[in-house]
Amino acid sequence: MKFQLYKINANNDFEVICKGLAERIYLDGRFTIKYKGEEFETEEQLPDHSATAKVLINKLKEHKVINDFSDIKGIGHRIVHGGERFTQSTIITDEVFMEIKKMITLAPLHNPPAIAAIKAFRNIIAVPNVAVFDTSFHTTISEENYLYSVPYEWYTDHQVRRYGFHGISYRYITNHLAKILEKPVEEVNAVICHLGNGASMCAVKKGKSFDTSMGLTPLEGLIMGTRSGDIDPSIHQYIATETGQDLATITDILNKKSGLLGISGVSSDLRDVFASSKENQRSRLALKMSSKRIAKYLLAYANELDGEVDAIVFTAGIGENSAAMRQLVINNLKILKVDLDPIANEKKYDSEKLISSTRSILPIYAIRTDEEIMICTDTYNLTKK
Amino acid sequence: MKFQLYKINANNDFEVICKGLAERIYLDGRFTIKYKGEEFETEEQLPDHSATAKVLINKLKEHKVINDFSDIKGIGHRIVHGGERFTQSTIITDEVFMEIKKMITLAPLHNPPAIAAIKAFRNIIAVPNVAVFDTSFHTTISEENYLYSVPYEWYTDHQVRRYGFHGISYRYITNHLAKILEKPVEEVNAVICHLGNGASMCAVKKGKSFDTSMGLTPLEGLIMGTRSGDIDPSIHQYIATETGQDLATITDILNKKSGLLGISGVSSDLRDVFASSKENQRSRLALKMSSKRIAKYLLAYANELDGEVDAIVFTAGIGENSAAMRQLVINNLKILKVDLDPIANEKKYDSEKLISSTRSILPIYAIRTDEEIMICTDTYNLTKK
Repeated sequence: MKFQLYKINANNDFEVICKGLAERIYLDGRFTIKYKGEEFETEEQLPDHSATAKVLINKLKEHKVINDFSDIKGIGHRIVHGGERFTQSTIITDEVFMEIKKMITLAPLHNPPAIAAIKAFRNIIAVPNVAVFDTSFHTTISEENYLYSVPYEWYTDHQVRRYGFHGISYRYITNHLAKILEKPVEEVNAVICHLGNGASMCAVKKGKSFDTSMGLTPLEGLIMGTRSGDIDPSIHQYIATETGQDLATITDILNKKSGLLGISGVSSDLRDVFASSKENQRSRLALKMSSKRIAKYLLAYANELDGEVDAIVFTAGIGENSAAMRQLVINNLKILKVDLDPIANEKKYDSEKLISSTRSILPIYAIRTDEEIMICTDTYNLTKK
Repeated sequence: MKFQLYKINANNDFEVICKGLAERIYLDGRFTIKYKGEEFETEEQLPDHSATAKVLINKLKEHKVINDFSDIKGIGHRIVHGGERFTQSTIITDEVFMEIKKMITLAPLHNPPAIAAIKAFRNIIAVPNVAVFDTSFHTTISEENYLYSVPYEWYTDHQVRRYGFHGISYRYITNHLAKILEKPVEEVNAVICHLGNGASMCAVKKGKSFDTSMGLTPLEGLIMGTRSGDIDPSIHQYIATETGQDLATITDILNKKSGLLGISGVSSDLRDVFASSKENQRSRLALKMSSKRIAKYLLAYANELDGEVDAIVFTAGIGENSAAMRQLVINNLKILKVDLDPIANEKKYDSEKLISSTRSILPIYAIRTDEEIMICTDTYNLTKK
């Protein structure tokens, strides 16, 4: 459970005054808090998310980040899955809370901890809680892009459709790109590559999500740290017959033992895969395959935007920091005349940098995403009176 | 079981002298034979492929297509799956026969009937039998394109890799295209769209398969008549949880109730989907989604060919005959400056036609495929003395 505490100064200036991390919840809990340049790490009893919420609030008081609960005016939560219902961030009323609970079937791994945290915070402090969804930004996708080529009843009866994720990040990047390009958000067309341990891409048309690579779940699309992304949908049955493993086990392997880790056999961490790529042929293979997959989506999305792309953006852990991966991706684009400036690509930067060369037909940026400030902004806007 | 009998005249001129079809094998068998412009359809006992082979041979004698078994010099069989082992067509020795049997696990639905037929023909007539594989053409694909982003051991221990299909058709089209373009086969670069009830695409680089959309099985890739093609690999587990159906049932639905049929709810036949598309919104959706998917692969393959594409080719039932689908696909290509000539696209044709306009940066053809003549050619070349 990650957290940041913001202070909203005059002129809507958002300042992070404290941040931290609760790890190993359900296990031998560890709690880290950073405040005024110092970092404190302690072992804590974190048997569940409710206890973790209490520890978090008490730590804020203990370190005198806040004097009183009343210093906190609102709490924003990142919710992975908001289904079709939540097209934007919303104050968590009892009805909203029930709706989010209903979506557990859509995100059985991700939504329950968030629900437990919301419940705990609602019990501790009497301030508005706000839900900010990773799916909301993608609710503008049209049905030809969100439906699957499966029985239509799987959609009407079981909500099988593309939802997409990383929407908070895509919204931040789209807004930030509008500022860079000095045009209204409603006019921004871009292909955004959110490349982290979980990775996806988004075609943004007129400031809205038009298509995205993750689908019903975050397993679809790109080759990720441990997730396969797209594969032949017969592989499940074939492996079940070959090994006797059941579907749950196979799906788990596709989520946790595949991707970069599965191909390279070395690591799910791209840095390790690059580091081992000189001597390890399978690491080189993992790099080739994952960069090719990104290029494939990039072309498909540039095409969906009718070729009218204002910019290509790389963001998230790998997208922001791996000049080598950015270079591999761009090298894979042969029918789109884009080009990186190798010096700009390697250069240190603060929040964003232009990395394309003058020969590139469109600008390419690396932009540091900031999902927390989006959550805080929505929370502030929905709770201010 | 389809068959054609060829007579090889002087100058390697292959003439079809008789063809036919055995249907409803295992059920209330029906047998059709076409000879000298006449067609004969009869009900026959076809309890299995062995009996069917006998009926076929007897019919050839009955209709005086042949006078004696010795008139037949070789029998060529289309085998769907040749794994990594069979990189080209081969005479079926006992060892080859055993190898093909071993590949049943890779193609549990397709290889067994072929094996039964080979066995039957070998018992009836003492002539060489030749195996021509749908996978052989794709054995030139490099590992970065044939491996999946799954545990590498699934490849080494269980042969999980992209094999590709429709290879006999792709080889025919590549050879035919070389003639049209008046260049050696070894220099042909093309994107071939084999669009039938089963549909796939192939990037041909220097006359060889470089990448293809079907994978371990013919389920992957494009949206087909009843097959889903690419989907989120988590859908299986989600549907299993939602409906209680098992993996075999779900995989069966993805193969037989999805694709055009699943989306439109109308039919797996593209003609029905087009016919209903005025009044049926889901039919329009099926057309949009399937043409978009083809365009996505087309761009990816044009890119893999470094943009150096000699031609785009449409072939097989839909590719050869549906001007409307060809138009939809080309309309979906925005970043590749290709264009169809609407009159040429609609025009009747014999074996091939150029359908691109003068504004197209590369030629687009519709070419009628001929898998049978490839099978016959290989059989002739391997058995002639």
